[in-house]
Amino acid sequence: MMKKNLLAAFIAAVLLSFSAEAQQALWGAQQIISPQVNADNTVTFRIDAVNADTVQVVGDFTPKKKMKTPFGEFEVAGPANLEKGADGIWSYTSEALPSDLYTYNIIVDGFKSTDPNNVYMIRDVSSVFSIFIVPGDKGNLYSVKDVPHGTVARRWYDSPGNEMTRRMTIYTPPGYENSKESYPVLYLLHGMGGDEEAWINYGRTSQIMDNLIAQGKATPMIVVMTNGNVAQSAAPGESSLGFEKPNMMLPHTMDGKFEETFPEVIKFIESNYRVKTDKADRAIAGLSMGGFHSLHISRYYPNTFDYVGLFSAAILPNEGVKSALYEDFDGTLKAQMDNGYKLYWIGMGKSDFLYKSGVDFRAKLDSMGMKYTYMETEGGHTWTNWRVYLSEFAPQLFK
Amino acid sequence: MMKKNLLAAFIAAVLLSFSAEAQQALWGAQQIISPQVNADNTVTFRIDAVNADTVQVVGDFTPKKKMKTPFGEFEVAGPANLEKGADGIWSYTSEALPSDLYTYNIIVDGFKSTDPNNVYMIRDVSSVFSIFIVPGDKGNLYSVKDVPHGTVARRWYDSPGNEMTRRMTIYTPPGYENSKESYPVLYLLHGMGGDEEAWINYGRTSQIMDNLIAQGKATPMIVVMTNGNVAQSAAPGESSLGFEKPNMMLPHTMDGKFEETFPEVIKFIESNYRVKTDKADRAIAGLSMGGFHSLHISRYYPNTFDYVGLFSAAILPNEGVKSALYEDFDGTLKAQMDNGYKLYWIGMGKSDFLYKSGVDFRAKLDSMGMKYTYMETEGGHTWTNWRVYLSEFAPQLFK
Repeated sequence: MMKKNLLAAFIAAVLLSFSAEAQQALWGAQQIISPQVNADNTVTFRIDAVNADTVQVVGDFTPKKKMKTPFGEFEVAGPANLEKGADGIWSYTSEALPSDLYTYNIIVDGFKSTDPNNVYMIRDVSSVFSIFIVPGDKGNLYSVKDVPHGTVARRWYDSPGNEMTRRMTIYTPPGYENSKESYPVLYLLHGMGGDEEAWINYGRTSQIMDNLIAQGKATPMIVVMTNGNVAQSAAPGESSLGFEKPNMMLPHTMDGKFEETFPEVIKFIESNYRVKTDKADRAIAGLSMGGFHSLHISRYYPNTFDYVGLFSAAILPNEGVKSALYEDFDGTLKAQMDNGYKLYWIGMGKSDFLYKSGVDFRAKLDSMGMKYTYMETEGGHTWTNWRVYLSEFAPQLFK
Repeated sequence: MMKKNLLAAFIAAVLLSFSAEAQQALWGAQQIISPQVNADNTVTFRIDAVNADTVQVVGDFTPKKKMKTPFGEFEVAGPANLEKGADGIWSYTSEALPSDLYTYNIIVDGFKSTDPNNVYMIRDVSSVFSIFIVPGDKGNLYSVKDVPHGTVARRWYDSPGNEMTRRMTIYTPPGYENSKESYPVLYLLHGMGGDEEAWINYGRTSQIMDNLIAQGKATPMIVVMTNGNVAQSAAPGESSLGFEKPNMMLPHTMDGKFEETFPEVIKFIESNYRVKTDKADRAIAGLSMGGFHSLHISRYYPNTFDYVGLFSAAILPNEGVKSALYEDFDGTLKAQMDNGYKLYWIGMGKSDFLYKSGVDFRAKLDSMGMKYTYMETEGGHTWTNWRVYLSEFAPQLFK
C-alpha cells in the first residue's frame, strides 16, 4: 500500500499540511501564474480573490502619483486596478517594461500584502515586496546564469570598538577556494534602513559579480557587505533581538562611529581571507548613507583606497553631530587627493532628493582640482539606480 | 538646508519610495504590531483592512479541521476569525501557545497572503508563511542568542554524475576558521519539495547548532545541507531557471540518482574543508524523503557513517523504480549492521502518514537484531517535529 502510493501520499500530506494553493494544483482547480512576464515584456498579474470588491497592484512600474508631506511633495507609486474576469480571477497587464528587477505589492480591499502566487520577495526596511525580472540587458545581469558561481557567506566578526560581534556578508569569487592567488576587495556599503543583507538581496550583488566576472568585464574580487548601523549586531531577525520590527531610527547612525570602527572590518578581512592588502587592491563604495560612509572613510584614512564609489551619496553629517571624523573634511579630502587614487566615481539620479548636495559636492571637488568620474541617470534614490551603479563601477576596479 | 534636515529628508524619501506603513509611523498614524507575543504566551494578530468583510488567520496553532481528499481524510489547519475593533483594526488573540516557531497566513475576504506587519517569513515549496517564535525551551533553542555564531555559506560544487554544478548550504561551527582542528560532519537532508535552503530556514539549523554548541551539548561540527532533488542545480530562484514557480513534481526524485551521486558531496566536503574523514566522524540524517535518502545512502555505502538519523522517514521506493540502489536492501542493511555503527536514530510523529511504514521498518530491524534508538512524538509530518529531532539527534553525535 505505502509502496504503491508513496509519492502521491507524500505530496498529498505535505500539500495538505501547508498549502491550499498547491492543493488546487493537485486536484485540478486552476493554478494561478502571477506574475507572468510575457514575450513582449508586458507583465500580467493574477489574483484569486472572489469575495473582494477591489484588487490593485502597486509597484515601481505602476503609474506615479504625487504625495504631499511635511518634507515637500514627492512622486510615489500609485495603484493600478485589476479587473475581475469571468472565471473570478482578477488580472492586470502592465505596459511593456524595460529590462530590470521590479518590486510590487497587491492590495485587496485596502489590505496591502505580497502576491501569494509569487514566492520571490525582497525586504526593504519594514516592507516586503514581491519581485520579478524582465529579461534583457539589466535583467540578465541580475539573474543567476549558467556561469561559475561565487560563494556567499554570512559570518560574524569581533568589533571591540562597538563592543559586540557583528555579522557581515562576504562574496568570494568563483575559484577563490581552489586557488592560491590573493584577491582584491570591494567593501560595499548599504543605505539607511539597510543592513548586511541589503546588497546581496535587493542589490543582486552575487548575480551581478558572477556575470560580470564570467563575461570578463570585472576582475575577480571579494565583496564585503557590512552592517553600517553600529547599534545593530546584525540584520533584523538575525540578532539576539529576535523578530523585532525593523526600524530606521537607529541610534549612532551617521555619527562617525561606523567610520571609526571600520578598520576592524578591514583587519578582519585581511587576516581571514587570501587578499591583497595594497591600496591598489582596495575599493569602497556605498549607496546613500553607505556613500556617505565611503566618502568619509576614504578621506579619513586617506591612503587606504584606490577606488571610491559614491552612489546617490549623502555628503554632510547632520547638524549637531560632533565627531573627529568630520572635523577636517577639507584637509583630509586634500590629503586623499594628494596621495593619489585611481578612481573616484560618483553616480546620481536626476530626481534624487540628494541631487543638490551632489552638485555642491562636485563643485567642491572641481574647486580643489580633485578628479572624479560622474554618471547621471534618470530616476531617483532607488535600487534600480544602485544596481546600475554597481554594474558600472565594478568593471572599473583593479585593472 | 540639506544639512539640517538630512536625516529627516533621508527617512522621508526612503519611506515614501517604498512603504505606506512606514509612512504611517513617521506621520503619526497608528503603527500596527503584529504578531505580538504576549507575556502569557498568547499571541495577538492585528490587521488594518478597513474595507474588508472578513479577516482570518490560519496557522499551525489555529483550530484544526478535517479535509477529505482522494488520499483519505486529513486534519488541516482551519481559520480563526479576527474581529474588527472600534479603531477599524481587526484583531485576534490565540490561546497560550507552547514554546515553538509557528507559521501562519492572513486571509482577507478570501485572499490569502502574508501578514504585512511582519517581515519574517519562510517559504515551503510554493507557499510563503509569516512566522513568529514563542519563547521558552524550544523557542530559545531556535532563536539567535548572544553566543558564538558559526558561518553559513552557500557554495556550488561540481557534480559530474548529474552533469551540473549544484548549490549547497554549509554551516561551519564557531571557531572553525581560526582553528587548526579538523571537524566531524553531519550531512542533513531535506524532504520532498525542499532544497538546500530548507533546513537552514525552516529548520533553524544554524540557531540550533550555535545554541547546542554554546551549551556544551553538541560537539562542534560542520553541517552540510545539500539539494536532494537531482533535477535541480539549486533552490527555486537560485538557479538559471529564474523565478519559476516551485514544483514538487520533479523528475528523478527518489529513483536512486541522489544516493548514487552522494559520494560527490562527501568528496567535495572532505577535499575542501578541514574535516575528519573517518566513519566515526560522519553522520547522515534527513527528514521524510531525506530520511529515505539517509537510510539508503547509509546502507548502500555500509561502512561510511557511524551515525544515521531517520526523521519521519519514507522507507521503500515507489513501485516501478528500478535502481541498483534498492536491489539488495536487506543485504546491505545487514552489512551496515555487521560493520557496526554508533547510533541509528529514528524519530516519528504519532499521526504521521508514514507512521505505519515506520512500524514495519522497525519490525524488520528488530527481526534482524539491528539496534536503533526510537523517539515517538505527538503530531505528524511537520517542521515542529523535525526541529525537535535535530535538537535530539545532534547532541548524540561524535561523542
